[in-house]
Amino acid sequence: MTVGKTPEGWTLVDNALTRNFEFDDFVAAFAFMTKVALLAEKADHHPSWHNVYNTVKISLNTHDAGDTVTDKDVALANEINACIA
Amino acid sequence: MTVGKTPEGWTLVDNALTRNFEFDDFVAAFAFMTKVALLAEKADHHPSWHNVYNTVKISLNTHDAGDTVTDKDVALANEINACIA
Amino acid sequence: MTVGKTPEGWTLVDNALTRNFEFDDFVAAFAFMTKVALLAEKADHHPSWHNVYNTVKISLNTHDAGDTVTDKDVALANEINACIA
Amino acid sequence: MTVGKTPEGWTLVDNALTRNFEFDDFVAAFAFMTKVALLAEKADHHPSWHNVYNTVKISLNTHDAGDTVTDKDVALANEINACIA
Repeated sequence: MTVGKTPEGWTLVDNALTRNFEFDDFVAAFAFMTKVALLAEKADHHPSWHNVYNTVKISLNTHDAGDTVTDKDVALANEINACIA
Repeated sequence: MTVGKTPEGWTLVDNALTRNFEFDDFVAAFAFMTKVALLAEKADHHPSWHNVYNTVKISLNTHDAGDTVTDKDVALANEINACIA
Repeated sequence: MTVGKTPEGWTLVDNALTRNFEFDDFVAAFAFMTKVALLAEKADHHPSWHNVYNTVKISLNTHDAGDTVTDKDVALANEINACIA
Repeated sequence: MTVGKTPEGWTLVDNALTRNFEFDDFVAAFAFMTKVALLAEKADHHPSWHNVYNTVKISLNTHDAGDTVTDKDVALANEINACIA
């Protein structure tokens, strides 16, 4: 399968698209997480993600495709990039 | 009592500091609401607010002061302004 | 057009399905609002809603149908009911 | 220093109070995370936490105390327990 181009800022780590985000503080970080939650639930495609204070690390792959990166992950990564643009 | 200066963008309507906010879409509007919720809960001072799609209208006054505007309202309005700066 | 049955707890007010919710505190109320936001964005159908402290008032109608109640409103009201069950 | 009793459901792992939570779906999990975010920001004490779909893993320790468990962690863990009670 050919998967779309890796979105800007994301890298492939352990079969997942991964990106680290840093914000001014927890309030800004959690507001971003709320955006991502809304996008993810709408896409029916959810991240594996970690937060501590002002940092958020997101990993995306597709469980139903044997935990590999699919176009669903690329699409969600692009949407996440758009919402912080 | 002398209350601090009305924060930029807010107006006094019916004994409440009021401001209308407009965003690109619901996702951006609700992320903003999440920021405001975090600030409000931390300040133990909560807004009366209304949302429809990309718009948010916030009204602030102080119930314990007979629903008048106090420095608590001015402080929260300033914090809300800062979080969208 | 025949619209589905009015969901339990909702009433028709000014051409909108309306329901008032009350919670223990602001934290519980805003967590509920976050659930509703996730459901609404997924359905591409957004409420007109108002919150103050532990109360949330939701009104649902369909702008594209001349601000009348449609099956989209009934469906979202049912989902909101389910998420607090 | 004597630290308060480990809250029910939490265990000490790598110098952090840790607990895994499981919910019906992502919507319920993220609503819980929103509650925790509100409690954490109010306490000025933030978790290290991970979510994937319906599961949330929270780890609490105190950076300013050399990443050990302090009463701040016990207090926040108790508040988190209370909000899902």
